[in-house]
Parts: sequence; structure tokens; C-alpha cells
Amino acid sequence: MDTKKLGRQTVCFSDPPAIVGFGSAVGNKERQGPLGQCFDFASTDDTFSQISWEKAETEMQKQALSFALNRAGITADQLDYVFAGDLLNQCIATSYSLRAQNAPFFGLYGACSTMAEGLSLGAMLVDGGFAAYVAALTSSHFCSAERQYRAPLEYGGQKSPTAQWTTTGAGAVILSRRGKGPFVTHVTTGKVVDKGICDVSNMGAAMAPAAYSTLQAHFEETGRGPEFYDLIITGDLGSLGKEIVMDFFRQDHIDLTGHYEDCGVLLFDSQKQDVHAGASGCGCSAVVLAGHLLRQMGQGTYRNLLFCGTGALHSPTSTMQGESIPGICHAVAIAAEKGENV
Amino acid sequence: MDTKKLGRQTVCFSDPPAIVGFGSAVGNKERQGPLGQCFDFASTDDTFSQISWEKAETEMQKQALSFALNRAGITADQLDYVFAGDLLNQCIATSYSLRAQNAPFFGLYGACSTMAEGLSLGAMLVDGGFAAYVAALTSSHFCSAERQYRAPLEYGGQKSPTAQWTTTGAGAVILSRRGKGPFVTHVTTGKVVDKGICDVSNMGAAMAPAAYSTLQAHFEETGRGPEFYDLIITGDLGSLGKEIVMDFFRQDHIDLTGHYEDCGVLLFDSQKQDVHAGASGCGCSAVVLAGHLLRQMGQGTYRNLLFCGTGALHSPTSTMQGESIPGICHAVAIAAEKGENV
Repeated sequence: MDTKKLGRQTVCFSDPPAIVGFGSAVGNKERQGPLGQCFDFASTDDTFSQISWEKAETEMQKQALSFALNRAGITADQLDYVFAGDLLNQCIATSYSLRAQNAPFFGLYGACSTMAEGLSLGAMLVDGGFAAYVAALTSSHFCSAERQYRAPLEYGGQKSPTAQWTTTGAGAVILSRRGKGPFVTHVTTGKVVDKGICDVSNMGAAMAPAAYSTLQAHFEETGRGPEFYDLIITGDLGSLGKEIVMDFFRQDHIDLTGHYEDCGVLLFDSQKQDVHAGASGCGCSAVVLAGHLLRQMGQGTYRNLLFCGTGALHSPTSTMQGESIPGICHAVAIAAEKGENV
Repeated sequence: MDTKKLGRQTVCFSDPPAIVGFGSAVGNKERQGPLGQCFDFASTDDTFSQISWEKAETEMQKQALSFALNRAGITADQLDYVFAGDLLNQCIATSYSLRAQNAPFFGLYGACSTMAEGLSLGAMLVDGGFAAYVAALTSSHFCSAERQYRAPLEYGGQKSPTAQWTTTGAGAVILSRRGKGPFVTHVTTGKVVDKGICDVSNMGAAMAPAAYSTLQAHFEETGRGPEFYDLIITGDLGSLGKEIVMDFFRQDHIDLTGHYEDCGVLLFDSQKQDVHAGASGCGCSAVVLAGHLLRQMGQGTYRNLLFCGTGALHSPTSTMQGESIPGICHAVAIAAEKGENV
């Protein structure tokens, strides 16, 4: 086992890659939410001037990447690799946004954990000496997701109280070998965890065990406790999934209160915006990271952040076949200073 | 730019990762084809004792991985990372096969280029010091693919002469830091290439420009010509796509004759087995590599192989919306001896 590995799931970077750019583009409901002012572009029109929801999602990806590249001061031609994926069948929002870029591309499918998965792999390629610049990119769109996973919008389907609202948004982050930070210091890669939840209107409960498993591994392998982090943030467990994670840790006599939040809880005002258990979708954690958290790190609000993307790895077909919902969670430790992880 | 990079798309490994295990499981038509004797398991029944085609595909993945682990002399518990994906919506064949493994998992979507994508990323993580053992795993199943992409089998749809036959098969390859070879010496990562082909019954034509683009980059960045390789093999272009690639190079005054083949041409006897332009699917290049090519390398038939996975990154939705088919190709150079790449 190499010294770069702290355990089976966790890597500690000897020369932590820097986050040199980030960008976000969101829809109207996200604009109206509590984080509405944080995004690079917040549309009043969810079509993004396109003729289909899928093309709108592609357009958001292009915008988010463009903002991230601008902030990094580079062009897409300087990217060594782009890691990207989305929730649509065959990840078409991604293929068509990457068609417009002249960049080597690795397609991911990590469901809503895609931003964390892309950051994990991107950081390893930068630290491993394979890349000077890597982009991690992902998106989701409420309207394309509803049509594909549930029912067309015109149907006017009702949601159960445990259900979440798919984020209309795209986020991009650029990693580089050099930069003034923040820095990706550790990644803890998740395993598939399935505790038998079959209710697709309760994705928070399906993904929470995976978040707990990856956080446990991270704490054990790094020797850190929750108090090390100013903020541990899961991807899109929503209010219910967040409670379940806190409950699991309570049973281990670990109290996450004051150190833990969920992107799906932060993005919308669940009372005023009628989103039930909160936000979900690849775009959720991506825009909260690229819109809100990285800005806050820049302003010194957080010095140590543990960003934990969570994904539900089922499909409508597997659900119709009676299968339960496998979950995954990838954790990425982000520090304001390079030295803080040593 | 790091010295490990020969160019923007190509990495050359300083200490090439070894292929220490490979495994394959295929269906009945593949068993009856010209390579039928090469596979670890060839079923006479495409259900693989499961109650749905999707579960059958998951079962094949488990079998292929199991054979590869046996050959490597390790258990799944020793894998640092598994890179896997498939063609089904939300990659469910993969999620459910990984649910049975206790291994850190990165989900990929590279369509039929998935094996080459997994090998590329796996080799970088091993060479970069992040892993002792990595698995690359993928699958496709004719029946699950027909239902999802075209029409249920019961419909009895006809295929056009340019169409290909989705492979029923799963392949797995294990990479390690140590081993007697063969070795992954270079990877050339593809960009999304789209020349405007819209005919989903002519995927070979849609993907051929991506194969040409990646091969061009590989030759330019490594300084190698086609004659360096005993065999350059594309993933699943089929007879028509293969001809198009040869044509493109002919226009550059480069003759690939005698050095170039396509997995989709090798897997079936296109005349006797009525598969039109040949085989396709993630499983195609995966089982030809893990069943046929790596065995042949072990027997000394090939000393230098360029394995070029090809993928079509569209979906039925993008097709219905009138979009053309973006393609991608990732090339992986495999050598019998470590030193041959230096």
C-alpha cells in the first residue's frame, strides 16, 4: 500500500491540488431561494433560450464551465481532462455540452454524487502528475428529470412529503497543480451501500446509509473527528436524510450538531418554496459548492470543509422490477491552506 | 506540463501497470461465434438464471469480475477501486453488481468505450500511487439493450444492413502495480467528436471519426506509426465503421492494412450469424479484450496492442429531438514487456 493512501478508501495528497475556478448557473426557483444571490447566472426562465429541457440543461453546463474557466483565467483548450456526467439517460446533457469543448473527456455516472466523484478523480490526476488543469462538471434540470423519472410536467403529479425537488442548475470546478487555494487535501471514495429502501419518493433515506458509511471511513482513516471540520456537507439527502445521518452518528455517540449540513436543505426555503424534503439532483451539491461554499471559503467563513456528494444508483426500470435503491457517497476534504492537512 | 504527458491527450507511464487478471462471461450467440472457445463462461441460456434481462446483465458482470479476481489471485476486498459502467439507463447493471462487492467504486458512462475508459483511469491511479489493485468492468446484453434502445424483442423488429448486434457479455480486467505483464504503457484520452451522423442504425459511421481523431492524436503524440503495433483494434465500429477509419487514414497516405481490426468484426461471423455490420455494445470490446486478445498476448501472438474503445454518446431522447450522434474513443497501449515503451 502506498503512503498516499491512509486506508482502503482515503487518499491524502502530498501536494494538494488547488481549486482555481468555479462557476454556477441555475434556474428561477433556485434564484428565488436563500442562496439566490450566490450564483454566477440565475435565470428567470428555465428554458435557457433552448427548445427542449434537455438542451436547456446542456446550455447550463456550458455556462457553468465558462464561468469557471473565466475565473481560472484559462480557456477550455488548456484543460487536460474534463470529468462530467448528469442524470439524463446516457448522460446527454453532458455529451452535448462537451461536444462544444475541445477537451479530453471522461464520462461519469455517479448520479447526484457526480461533482464529488469528478473532484476526486480530477484531484488524483492532478496530484499524480497527469494533468495541469482538470474540470469537474455536472448538472440537473427539474423539467428534464421530471419527464424522465416521474411524469411529464403537464400531468401535474403530486409529490409525497418525503420527496425532494430536482435542482435546475449546473456547477463546474477547475483544479490545478498551482494556485492560492482552497485545496483538495483528501478524498474518501464510497462503496455501494443498499439498506433495502424501495421508495423512490424517499431518496434521502436510501442515500443516508451510504453517507454514514463514507463519513465513518473518512473519520477512521484520517483520524479526524467531525469537530475538525467547520462544515461537513452532504449532497442532497434533504431534511429527512440529514436527520437519519445525524441519528446514525448519535448511536455511535458522535454529535454532528453545528458541524453538519446538507446542500439539499440549504438551496431552497422548504416552507415557502413548497419543495417538501428539500433539493436533489446532480446540480444541487454542484451549485451549492460552486455558488455558495467556495465563495464562503474565499471570504474565510470556512477553513476546513468536507464535501460529501451522495447518489442514488437506481433507475425507473429497477424500481419497476421491485429492486431497492443502492446509494453511494464520495467525500472530498477542502482546506483553505495547503498545510492544514499535514 | 508534466513529463508523464507526451501531449495533451497522451500519458506515458513511467512504471507501467500490469494486467494481472481478466475475465469474461458471454451469452449463447457469442458462444457460437468464432471466438466462442475463448471465454471463461459462455452460457447456452441468455437469462443467466435470472428473472429479467437487466438482472442477467448484472449476473454476467459478477461472473466476469469473479474470473478476473481468481486469475489475479485476489479477492474483491483487495481492490482499491472498481471503475465500471454499462449502457442501461442509470447504469443499473453496474450498480447492482457492485452492490455485491465490498469495494470503493467510481461509476463511468462512456457508452461502448467504457472498458477503455476504465483501463485508462485505473492505470493512472495505479501509476500515480493511489492503488495497488484496480478493476475495470463493463457489460451489455442484447435483450436489455433492445428493449431500452429499440423495441421489445416480442415486437420482432427488423434491422437495417448497417445496424449492429449488441453483445451479450461482460468483461473485467484487473490492473496492479506489480506483475509479469502484459503492461498498460500509454493511454490516449478522447474528445467528443460529432460529424453530424443522425442514423442510429449506423453507429459505426457515427463513431469512426472519433476513432480516427484519437488514433491520430496517439500517433502524433507518441511518434509511433501504425506499424509499431501488431494490432490496433477499435471497439465496436463494425465492418462499415472499420472501413471508414481505414478510408480516413488512406486520405492521409497511411495504410492500416494488416495492423488494424475491430472487435465488432471479430466477435460474430456476420454472414452465418445474421448480425449485419457486426457486434456492438460495452460488452463487445470488453469480452474480445478479456476473452481473446489478452490470451493471445499471453501466448505471444501479439507483443504490442493498441486497444481503442469507441462509444456513441447519444440517447433515444436526443435522437427523437433530431440531434446527431457524438462519438468518443479512448486508446490504451498494451505491451508484453515493460521496457518496450521506453
